[in-house]
Amino acid sequence: MAPLLHPDRLLPSLPDTRAIARRLYDGIKDLPIVSPHGHTDPRWYAENEAFPDPSTLFVVPDHYIFRMLYSQGIDLLDLGVPAKDGSVSERDSRTIWHRFAAHYHLFRGTPTRVWCDHAFSTLFDLDVPLSAVTADLYFDRISERLAQPAYRPRALFERFNIEVIATTESPLDPLKHHATIRASGWSGRVVTAYRPDSVVDPDFDGFRDNLVAFGTISGCDTSTWTGYLAAHRNRRDYFKSFGATSSDHGHPSAATADLPLSDAEALYQKVRKGPVSVAEAELFRAQMLTEMARMSLEDGLVMQIHPGSVRNHNRFLFNRFGRDMGADIPSQTNYVQALKPLLDRFGNEKNLTIILFTLDETAYSRELAPLAGHYPCLRLGPPWWFFDSVEGMKRFREQAVETAGFYNTVGFNDDTRAFPSIPARHDVARRVDAGFLAELVADHRLREDEAHELAHDLTYRLVKDAYKL
Amino acid sequence: MAPLLHPDRLLPSLPDTRAIARRLYDGIKDLPIVSPHGHTDPRWYAENEAFPDPSTLFVVPDHYIFRMLYSQGIDLLDLGVPAKDGSVSERDSRTIWHRFAAHYHLFRGTPTRVWCDHAFSTLFDLDVPLSAVTADLYFDRISERLAQPAYRPRALFERFNIEVIATTESPLDPLKHHATIRASGWSGRVVTAYRPDSVVDPDFDGFRDNLVAFGTISGCDTSTWTGYLAAHRNRRDYFKSFGATSSDHGHPSAATADLPLSDAEALYQKVRKGPVSVAEAELFRAQMLTEMARMSLEDGLVMQIHPGSVRNHNRFLFNRFGRDMGADIPSQTNYVQALKPLLDRFGNEKNLTIILFTLDETAYSRELAPLAGHYPCLRLGPPWWFFDSVEGMKRFREQAVETAGFYNTVGFNDDTRAFPSIPARHDVARRVDAGFLAELVADHRLREDEAHELAHDLTYRLVKDAYKL
Amino acid sequence: MAPLLHPDRLLPSLPDTRAIARRLYDGIKDLPIVSPHGHTDPRWYAENEAFPDPSTLFVVPDHYIFRMLYSQGIDLLDLGVPAKDGSVSERDSRTIWHRFAAHYHLFRGTPTRVWCDHAFSTLFDLDVPLSAVTADLYFDRISERLAQPAYRPRALFERFNIEVIATTESPLDPLKHHATIRASGWSGRVVTAYRPDSVVDPDFDGFRDNLVAFGTISGCDTSTWTGYLAAHRNRRDYFKSFGATSSDHGHPSAATADLPLSDAEALYQKVRKGPVSVAEAELFRAQMLTEMARMSLEDGLVMQIHPGSVRNHNRFLFNRFGRDMGADIPSQTNYVQALKPLLDRFGNEKNLTIILFTLDETAYSRELAPLAGHYPCLRLGPPWWFFDSVEGMKRFREQAVETAGFYNTVGFNDDTRAFPSIPARHDVARRVDAGFLAELVADHRLREDEAHELAHDLTYRLVKDAYKL
Repeated sequence: MAPLLHPDRLLPSLPDTRAIARRLYDGIKDLPIVSPHGHTDPRWYAENEAFPDPSTLFVVPDHYIFRMLYSQGIDLLDLGVPAKDGSVSERDSRTIWHRFAAHYHLFRGTPTRVWCDHAFSTLFDLDVPLSAVTADLYFDRISERLAQPAYRPRALFERFNIEVIATTESPLDPLKHHATIRASGWSGRVVTAYRPDSVVDPDFDGFRDNLVAFGTISGCDTSTWTGYLAAHRNRRDYFKSFGATSSDHGHPSAATADLPLSDAEALYQKVRKGPVSVAEAELFRAQMLTEMARMSLEDGLVMQIHPGSVRNHNRFLFNRFGRDMGADIPSQTNYVQALKPLLDRFGNEKNLTIILFTLDETAYSRELAPLAGHYPCLRLGPPWWFFDSVEGMKRFREQAVETAGFYNTVGFNDDTRAFPSIPARHDVARRVDAGFLAELVADHRLREDEAHELAHDLTYRLVKDAYKL
Repeated sequence: MAPLLHPDRLLPSLPDTRAIARRLYDGIKDLPIVSPHGHTDPRWYAENEAFPDPSTLFVVPDHYIFRMLYSQGIDLLDLGVPAKDGSVSERDSRTIWHRFAAHYHLFRGTPTRVWCDHAFSTLFDLDVPLSAVTADLYFDRISERLAQPAYRPRALFERFNIEVIATTESPLDPLKHHATIRASGWSGRVVTAYRPDSVVDPDFDGFRDNLVAFGTISGCDTSTWTGYLAAHRNRRDYFKSFGATSSDHGHPSAATADLPLSDAEALYQKVRKGPVSVAEAELFRAQMLTEMARMSLEDGLVMQIHPGSVRNHNRFLFNRFGRDMGADIPSQTNYVQALKPLLDRFGNEKNLTIILFTLDETAYSRELAPLAGHYPCLRLGPPWWFFDSVEGMKRFREQAVETAGFYNTVGFNDDTRAFPSIPARHDVARRVDAGFLAELVADHRLREDEAHELAHDLTYRLVKDAYKL
Repeated sequence: MAPLLHPDRLLPSLPDTRAIARRLYDGIKDLPIVSPHGHTDPRWYAENEAFPDPSTLFVVPDHYIFRMLYSQGIDLLDLGVPAKDGSVSERDSRTIWHRFAAHYHLFRGTPTRVWCDHAFSTLFDLDVPLSAVTADLYFDRISERLAQPAYRPRALFERFNIEVIATTESPLDPLKHHATIRASGWSGRVVTAYRPDSVVDPDFDGFRDNLVAFGTISGCDTSTWTGYLAAHRNRRDYFKSFGATSSDHGHPSAATADLPLSDAEALYQKVRKGPVSVAEAELFRAQMLTEMARMSLEDGLVMQIHPGSVRNHNRFLFNRFGRDMGADIPSQTNYVQALKPLLDRFGNEKNLTIILFTLDETAYSRELAPLAGHYPCLRLGPPWWFFDSVEGMKRFREQAVETAGFYNTVGFNDDTRAFPSIPARHDVARRVDAGFLAELVADHRLREDEAHELAHDLTYRLVKDAYKL
């Protein structure tokens, strides 16, 4: 039986090219992890409690895993996913683990397989493949380890060699876990990021109540446009006091707007009072991207725009289980016309950084690389979500670098809620980049000394520079 | 001169990877052909008459061939394609063959070249390339063989090792060739598939007459919505009695709808009486996809949706020669919004199988893989039409597997009218899959034992399971 | 330090495949350059004056270079780009060169790097990489050489082994440089091409004044539709007398129209007098593509359609510096519906050649290859602009050849304003094609003798045939 992790995995197969890639990878594999964008729970680092059991760690919270099992006919209740409608979910962690193990072959060829095997091997010293046969071996081994102090969140954070990690919070979040972390004296660097969708998107659940709470938490009068903007400034400052260097915007599209003040004020009153049309909601979100850019120029937060996901596509599952059930589906996303109002206003600012992400790969070469290869404020985020994968990363480099260069990109984001996958994800990115650079060297498009410098830049320097970390 | 078929053709070039691919290919190359979707003529198997001559077999009916010759200025009349306007087509098969042979270089780099060479070599023992110089050698050899009993349709069917093949028929077809096949006692398994475009698409030639004929053949009253749906149920049952396990839907878009009953009834009366607007025709087709899904839940037929072709784009050729003249051009196709009404109704049904195809490759990674990687009822059909090719198949695997996995795909379809190309097409798919899997093994993303299991699944098991064959 | 140009650069890395590619490349590397489409300045060939200095040759006019520097925060004024608003640009060529050199690493992985290194090495015998450290060495060497007679435009033209080059001029251009070239007795073949955007696009700067000038220069009455069309015929004839074999059309979209005469007349009067709506401007451009096709049938000029660029996306830069500042961004481009009116009218004409280009790569396999693989009048132009690159060319071949074949393509265009990049660009295309063909040979999809014939066709014969050069 082959070990779960071959030392040359994901590197180019051609021996000479692989040798170059190996040298490049060796130069970056031990660099600290800089994780500027993700969704780990700050409570973990604050409370530092043991992860309870294998299924709660690996299966129940990971929509990459349960959506695939669901697609093959396995009920979410049987995987322990909690329902909102009173249905009873499986409670027995070992039973859930057996279901996962028996279907582990479904992940062949997917990044989930790569991430899980990496964690199984490096964290739990497992060296046989997961299957129905080995399910108990796995469950027992992981359970035993999770009970050890070395597997608590802070210990893993240090073991993972994380230099800094960002979480993502709403303006309505008091950031108490972040406060606890700071008060604890622990040396791990955990920062927040400002994600204002709940008070910026009129279609967000409870939007109007959120505006009221936004006034309360900020001490600003959110019944006026001016006061609403002041509330953002107030909370951005508060987030900065917990290390935030970025904001994050998860809109359905990349639309931006640059309305005259009186129109913006009137639109705000309309969305505040409701109801609004689809077009008005879109216009308000669009205007708010431009407002956020304006504030970024003032306070230095880097903007991240994550557009193009049709959220909660499965109506039945949404009603039963709520958000984030693996049913967010990408859709076609335009950037050229959508970003123009914002770029007309702030596109030439050298002190503004806007990082663009996409779930529509057709935009890499057609829109995103030409835009980032021109506008001083724009940078390209790494492959996101479904494309945070070996082939996805290759396509990104092949399609973006020739026009945008490497230096308009910003390194890697793990963007994960799955804590044990963090080292695996960064390792995949480092291997794929080493392989891509090795192929440019083998092609004589790049000298090897340049490739070494680039490998370091793509792994470490660019992300720190772009995110000001 | 190299032989026409190298034993390692289409396998990866890197020696170690090729060796893995060769082992994988050797394990699947002799598996029976399961052909769940295609357009061969059931008359061939019913009457078992000799194919008349080389041009009638290879050139005249194959729009892949004559469209390419046409694009380079060769008149369709000169290739023997029959006109509807009284124009006289070339009748001499040898003359047509010479025209094809003299332009065979036009197919360099295309799948047509691969398929033809495979048939020339394996069926007709030809080992020199087709060209103007060898045209007569080819014509004589093929003619001589076609006159032999071993080259009759049933003998070829058996020689091709076809376990089962599906043809595609209209609900208005009495299936007499299928009845003849069954009555003949021949052991070859030929099944039909239910393709209702002629009575579902208000834009179909003769749609209103078709509805009348649909009533007659089903014995149902197609003047009412209820009777019209009953006619579908009746004919689906009849098709099932001739082995049908699937329906097939060739709509301009993937639009679906889920209208209230009274709206559906009213819309049916409108399309039945005509005229209808473009939007009404689209809405009726959309509603019918949802109705077909409902019937599939009842009777178990697997649904295939083949959307996105702009049919008969060349007005002049359509007027002169009719349909299927190589002028069907793909266009951009949306799935995320289009399928939502149907999925809201039936998307979570485990006993429903809907197989999605596309001519818009941008949908693989952006829409189709995320949808199929989530909804229990969805599966991804193989690369279709222009993408049933070496590079097309590679792109499909590279872009779909990481998100949908292998197990939300359904193996290969040859989808052909060109009988001698069937073994070639399946062989290409087996080689490309063996190569793709070999690269995952060489990359250490997959163990070789898993790859062997997958190779068998992709070639044989998945298609039988998905299509219930 | 490796030399700047490795003899095997850009060829496949696998030794056996590289050996085939090398043989193919050796057969074509010394073929003359046929450059049927580009933007070099005819004044160079007419006046044959020395290029003034390194920065004026390489940096100031090349939007590939200055847009990348701009994207990383370098002011265009500091690169010597002249402003329209009175701002003062850097005048010192050595200072500009130092800025370029210090940021040369930004071009790693881009075609600009490949082109520049090729020119540095082959024209200026430089064998150390450009950087801040070597900036003066470079500046001095290039300056010294540019002063030599062997570096004047005509000498370089001959050294580049250019058999023929086309420039691109407006109908309002008297072609005096072309006249000077002809009168000079020089043997270099420089032809013009008819680019009528300034009198066809109602959104073009000064459109209405241009129509008046168009009447003057043609001697036709451009106040009527008939006279306006006659003016085109007149100028097309004039351009033909200076060797033109093609027209070129740079529209925002590929829309075509085929209006009744009275509608076309009325629309012309509307655009002539203005103002026009966005839709009317688009319709007029659309109609004019069909009119140009009609004239091409009469006079034999080959039509080139270059659609899909959103010009001057950066409003601030446009106001300050004008057009062509590296801020032209591609956008999604439809061909299937857009070209139908023109194709319904002239699509089946064997004596018409329309060469289609795209900045939207998704159209290669979905729309362009199926269209060109069917319509006799259509051919596919090579990868354009952002895609005139190693990876861009590979994607074009991989996505277009299987459906369109090689023979519906037209070889390479350099499309450049950067004179020293011409040999580099053609060399890249030859290497990429040799590599692509070598992989087909290594895959046993093509015999090597066919690949040699194809390599010659793709480099030399197809471009001469398609462009009638």
